[in-house]
Amino acid sequence: MKSDIDALMAKRNLDAIIVAGDGHSNPPRNYLTKGAKVTGGYVLKKAGSEPVMVVNGMEVAEAEKSGLTVYSYNDLGYGELYKSLDGDLQKTSVIFWKRMLDKISVERGRVGVYGEGNIAQYLLLSKQVEAEYPEYELVGEMGMTLFEEAYVTKDAEEIERIRSVAQRTSAVLQATWDFIGGHRAEGETVVKDDGTPLTIGDVKRFVRRELLDRDLEDDAMIFAEGRDGGFPHSRGEAEMPLQLGQPIVFDLFPRELGGGYFHDSTRTWSIGYATPEVEAAYQQVMDAFEVAVDNFRANIPARALQEAVQDYFEGKGHPTTRSHPATEVGYVHSLGHGVGLNIHERPSLGHLSKDTLQPGNVISIEPGLYYPERNFGVRVEDLCYVDANGELISLTEFHKELVLPLRKN
Amino acid sequence: MKSDIDALMAKRNLDAIIVAGDGHSNPPRNYLTKGAKVTGGYVLKKAGSEPVMVVNGMEVAEAEKSGLTVYSYNDLGYGELYKSLDGDLQKTSVIFWKRMLDKISVERGRVGVYGEGNIAQYLLLSKQVEAEYPEYELVGEMGMTLFEEAYVTKDAEEIERIRSVAQRTSAVLQATWDFIGGHRAEGETVVKDDGTPLTIGDVKRFVRRELLDRDLEDDAMIFAEGRDGGFPHSRGEAEMPLQLGQPIVFDLFPRELGGGYFHDSTRTWSIGYATPEVEAAYQQVMDAFEVAVDNFRANIPARALQEAVQDYFEGKGHPTTRSHPATEVGYVHSLGHGVGLNIHERPSLGHLSKDTLQPGNVISIEPGLYYPERNFGVRVEDLCYVDANGELISLTEFHKELVLPLRKN
Repeated sequence: MKSDIDALMAKRNLDAIIVAGDGHSNPPRNYLTKGAKVTGGYVLKKAGSEPVMVVNGMEVAEAEKSGLTVYSYNDLGYGELYKSLDGDLQKTSVIFWKRMLDKISVERGRVGVYGEGNIAQYLLLSKQVEAEYPEYELVGEMGMTLFEEAYVTKDAEEIERIRSVAQRTSAVLQATWDFIGGHRAEGETVVKDDGTPLTIGDVKRFVRRELLDRDLEDDAMIFAEGRDGGFPHSRGEAEMPLQLGQPIVFDLFPRELGGGYFHDSTRTWSIGYATPEVEAAYQQVMDAFEVAVDNFRANIPARALQEAVQDYFEGKGHPTTRSHPATEVGYVHSLGHGVGLNIHERPSLGHLSKDTLQPGNVISIEPGLYYPERNFGVRVEDLCYVDANGELISLTEFHKELVLPLRKN
Repeated sequence: MKSDIDALMAKRNLDAIIVAGDGHSNPPRNYLTKGAKVTGGYVLKKAGSEPVMVVNGMEVAEAEKSGLTVYSYNDLGYGELYKSLDGDLQKTSVIFWKRMLDKISVERGRVGVYGEGNIAQYLLLSKQVEAEYPEYELVGEMGMTLFEEAYVTKDAEEIERIRSVAQRTSAVLQATWDFIGGHRAEGETVVKDDGTPLTIGDVKRFVRRELLDRDLEDDAMIFAEGRDGGFPHSRGEAEMPLQLGQPIVFDLFPRELGGGYFHDSTRTWSIGYATPEVEAAYQQVMDAFEVAVDNFRANIPARALQEAVQDYFEGKGHPTTRSHPATEVGYVHSLGHGVGLNIHERPSLGHLSKDTLQPGNVISIEPGLYYPERNFGVRVEDLCYVDANGELISLTEFHKELVLPLRKN
């Protein structure tokens, strides 16, 4: 949780952290600055103190929306320094990092470096700052980093933001269901009024508009039909027409416009009718979903849910990555993952996970079955949170009907 | 240019490069893989050889659209390794980097690390790989990196992609002009049919939909009215109503949907009428634009154009960052910058730039004047490329009228 950051710094023996990076999406910066819409600059935090921002003069007004203390580059003499070093960006940056650290009264010690950005640049800069100022150690991390560890449990404000994204996403799912259902078929192909096929590209365009109308942005949704749906991460081919009786895996994971909290959900739809084989697989996936929910308890290992689902699928004769580690058919991925400012966070619900489920977690539950050679994949996913009482609450309100009927024809 | 990569590696004495990072937008990966839509993994290139991709098994099909050789993580034994190390991500990753480098027959030497991603992770990983395998040196860069240097000159295929984005952006500008013009005023406020104000938020939503309809995505457009337009990077406040006679700085820089090439353009619009003060400033900015174009020659220093524009503005009595380095009014930024897979690339057209203008450059030309205390900013920007004959060609077709008339009322 955000309020744990100082404790998490102490655990890592960090005297300060720097969040760098210029990305459109920079979760650690967003996390510390309440989503201030700056395009670059730094956030620094000394252990035990509030974070401060250092940004381009042109972005001071945006940065101040964070409520944090903001310095412009020129408050720290950037322009003059750059000029005095004849435009040497590297030398300027090294000295500027020292100035920033001095500004927050961190004259030595271990400094964690975070953020999303240009890897080459921060690799060089970290090495150079350490070489020039041996009083600092610049520290990287991977896996359960300071931020990952904080993200694991969400506070009430974060839950409300994710709930809002969830409600808007459910509304987009409904609009998309209605949009497709408003078409008719010619033979096995879904067509528009003019008789041309309704394509996956048409649907994705519709979905993106519906998202935008609700201040959400798409991050590469999956809308994969038939055989493509049998590969869990195939995005779907834009020019492919929608066909009756071909299951569609629709994995929609939008976030707040401009970079922010995500929602993650998947539905499988079969237009007009479902084949008995797909219907049976769908029922098993729905049952697996219930197995996960029924086995949920706060404070148990996350992998226990994955194991329960693997037990279920293996009992039905499907290979899993536990029974057949290299399998690409059957149940081939983990049951879910944390979701927040990143689409994939901790806890992991994989069978090697060492994470524990706990109040404040926001997790996806997403069992699936994949048989591309039989021309189908099926996945069902809700986003859930664990409330203060340890109850698992779904945030994804949209229904789980498999067959999407066409109203015309 | 892309074809220069081997020469640029040789210049840096690099035996190989690794492009890492999981970003939605990862320009170096996009550049080497023709925009294959993978969400993670690596691109590796040995000096003198074609790049190869290493991706999650679920993304092999997408990765193969690059035309490159693709290995899945499990082709290199990732899953077994991870399991044998009891899920230790850090140890697994270090050994996996060694395996990837062995796979492309790079058993020692200098390896450049590039890409957009989690800074903490790649900082740690680079240090650990060097510690574990001292036969490798992992090399960072900043400023004019290998990729930045390659990006400076675009090949014909890149120019065509940017031209297409430019044409679509101009169509969106026209649609937005028409959309606003289709409204009426009550007093000084632009209103909708129901009499409620047309807000900046309404316009931005319209623009994003128009972009999406053309397979473009917005990256934080500026639509800033009155005083806000006087701060070059103020984005504009969503709830603010459009007012007659208040100049609007509309800086639109969309890119290909899903991460790709950008176009960058700015127009200043004053709805209904313009005040004489704004009209005069606008004419000077248009003149400054012509000064830049008239002074353009291939193979001159880029800063010569900035200096010519600064001469012009200073001659008209405006402070510039040359005459008054700390000024926040007058002409306060550089004349332009390269544009490609990144919104800001080289060459820089600032007055400290050491870059030379040359065929293959794609550059913005964007003079402006900023006087927030007088409630206005004015900027005009076209994206241009330098053709093989050294001619400067504008890619931004949309007109440069200042006054946007309302058709109703």
